[in-house]
Amino acid sequence: VSSEIASRDAAIEADATDPLASVRARFTLPDGVIYLDGNSLGALAASVSAAVDDAVNRQWGRDLITSWNDNDWWTLPARVGDRIGALIGAAPGQVLCGDSTSVQLFQALVGLARLRPGRTELITDGAGFPTDQYVAESVARLLGLTLRRITPPELPAVISDDTAVVALSAVDYRTGEYWDLPALTATAHAAGAVINWDLCHAAGALPVELDELGADAAVGCTYKYLNGGPGSPAWIYLPHRHQGPIELPLTGWHGHADPFGLAPSFTPAPGIEQARIGTPALLSMLALESALTVWDAVSLDDVRAKSLALTEMMIAFADRSLPSVEVVTPRPSERRGSQVALRMPYAYEACQALIARRVIGDFRAPDLLRLGIAPLYLTYRQVWDAMEVLRDVLESGAYRDPAHARGASAVT
Amino acid sequence: VSSEIASRDAAIEADATDPLASVRARFTLPDGVIYLDGNSLGALAASVSAAVDDAVNRQWGRDLITSWNDNDWWTLPARVGDRIGALIGAAPGQVLCGDSTSVQLFQALVGLARLRPGRTELITDGAGFPTDQYVAESVARLLGLTLRRITPPELPAVISDDTAVVALSAVDYRTGEYWDLPALTATAHAAGAVINWDLCHAAGALPVELDELGADAAVGCTYKYLNGGPGSPAWIYLPHRHQGPIELPLTGWHGHADPFGLAPSFTPAPGIEQARIGTPALLSMLALESALTVWDAVSLDDVRAKSLALTEMMIAFADRSLPSVEVVTPRPSERRGSQVALRMPYAYEACQALIARRVIGDFRAPDLLRLGIAPLYLTYRQVWDAMEVLRDVLESGAYRDPAHARGASAVT
Repeated sequence: VSSEIASRDAAIEADATDPLASVRARFTLPDGVIYLDGNSLGALAASVSAAVDDAVNRQWGRDLITSWNDNDWWTLPARVGDRIGALIGAAPGQVLCGDSTSVQLFQALVGLARLRPGRTELITDGAGFPTDQYVAESVARLLGLTLRRITPPELPAVISDDTAVVALSAVDYRTGEYWDLPALTATAHAAGAVINWDLCHAAGALPVELDELGADAAVGCTYKYLNGGPGSPAWIYLPHRHQGPIELPLTGWHGHADPFGLAPSFTPAPGIEQARIGTPALLSMLALESALTVWDAVSLDDVRAKSLALTEMMIAFADRSLPSVEVVTPRPSERRGSQVALRMPYAYEACQALIARRVIGDFRAPDLLRLGIAPLYLTYRQVWDAMEVLRDVLESGAYRDPAHARGASAVT
Repeated sequence: VSSEIASRDAAIEADATDPLASVRARFTLPDGVIYLDGNSLGALAASVSAAVDDAVNRQWGRDLITSWNDNDWWTLPARVGDRIGALIGAAPGQVLCGDSTSVQLFQALVGLARLRPGRTELITDGAGFPTDQYVAESVARLLGLTLRRITPPELPAVISDDTAVVALSAVDYRTGEYWDLPALTATAHAAGAVINWDLCHAAGALPVELDELGADAAVGCTYKYLNGGPGSPAWIYLPHRHQGPIELPLTGWHGHADPFGLAPSFTPAPGIEQARIGTPALLSMLALESALTVWDAVSLDDVRAKSLALTEMMIAFADRSLPSVEVVTPRPSERRGSQVALRMPYAYEACQALIARRVIGDFRAPDLLRLGIAPLYLTYRQVWDAMEVLRDVLESGAYRDPAHARGASAVT
């Protein structure tokens, strides 16, 4: 069906039958903007403003310290964690919200490596997101492991009895390639290794079934497809079977079995609470908790279907009408995340020219224009129109305008 | 002067000449509450509500991803860091805001230990705040160091050529004892060790001069005397002289020399930006930035003088009128932080009875009632009245009311 959206009228028709059409009203979106950067910073859910106002003025300002109990601040990280867990196929009690993805990744990789003492190697994706590679480098150094960088399809050929941990992202942040999670997880396990999945570009973008997958750990941010707000706290998934043996390195007092006992030595809390570190950024986490309500009664299968229909429409448009552009996102739907990456000679300048026309995507060095698809608040017509604006920018040479030359960088 | 405040009238008189009296209007405080827990969660500055509303609705909701540049999100951690630096005697470019104290402490201790390769010992305070001890344990394990727990006055006797790092808190979180920072720092340096100061209970409570002290690193939270809000981000101080050689373990992409170059290997940013980790919790950090404006034109010497006057008044009151109570906070003013800790048989229940009478302090196991003094928004009269309420609770036996028995815990 979706590949037939080859005109603006067809896009408008697709909106008319979109099962997610009503969800858009749960967001507060700026007028006149087509926002294709929800894979970098998700849009503002309409409920968040009042929730944050309540957090600031009533919970903090009026109730002060008593809010830890009376407004349930203490239980927030596990409560929000479970809410995220429902979107990534994790049964309750296995996801904990807090800190940044970088910190959670450090936490997960050290913890996982300790489950495989004697093994000497940490494998990661050499084209993975920078933080993933930098944290893997640091963990390898601290634990005396060898860091090996591969592309995910090379895993079966390179994994061995020496491999302690495999650390991969589900979706390549540049190309949008969606890796074969079940096959790669099985490969890791067949070699006796453990595997962490970084779901930054997957959680909320497509259905992930962490429990079914048998992942050993997973981490992800919440400010992309989960719309938690700028720098909203990340999360870590630790399945029940590892919650006993794992030993996490970031031993803040919130993760202690008896945090108010004030004991001098660390004893991890039973269950996922052991993944707590220090006092969480509550205003940011309360904003996230409110933002997650947009998922109520939303089917991730509907999200995936709309996402694929939109990215197929974009790819077909590029094939037809953008001769100077190379589509680097995989064409088979099962290998595609929720974005389209287009390689072009003046990607930076084209991105700036789009922004000047109120179509917001982003640039990734050296030559990619990245267009993210957030099915909860984008319409088919908007995405069609964005592609037409892109065609105009490229055909007219508008990207050559000096106003669009390189200056300050945009940010993921 | 201050020790003469021995009556309610004298307290009212002290308010009349308090140079900080006008600062109280910069806060939004709940009616009828005497808040002696600002050393756990500081009060709400009046400017914060509008700042957060702007962050949510305009910066995030309307401007979306462009806020990283257009609303200066990218420069926030160093900007807020410098603002904190001005309150702890750190020249610009040496303080970075982000993450939790636990995470920053891990970052500092690993970085410092790497400055002393070959040395085998990490020394910390065995009565220090739990997170400080747990993080020290974890760092010692990761780096193969021996963890030695002492009381700070024992440092000269136990430090040796084996000592790599000394990790202490400036103020004891339970007793309120303020350690001799210059002497302890000099002791560490004389042995060739490096020292980290945890300033959670010092920053904003009393003048600290980190640069003058020659501290090798420092960390602290911002939700106590800096009033940043629940779980507002912490900070790390790394003096210029260590910014070249230090190698921090939490290598998130924000700390890279060229974060948008997307290089596969980590090269730390020059300067304090190397201490950035992942994407910071921006709503929480923007609230903090606004909260820090209450310090405009405030003299930390005035803060210290008022704090000491108030704690002296409390101690004298306890000596006169609370026979069942032991004052555990040091009496010499140079050894006292900005709190008074009172040991008593039913400290938990007394704390609950105070809260029921709208005097909010906190309990620390096993037997301490902890009363924090935030001179920016407390009046002498309030503190006097709080002591009278405490006397009534103890004299009347009101703490024996079953309503005040142990239930859910309060939280630091």
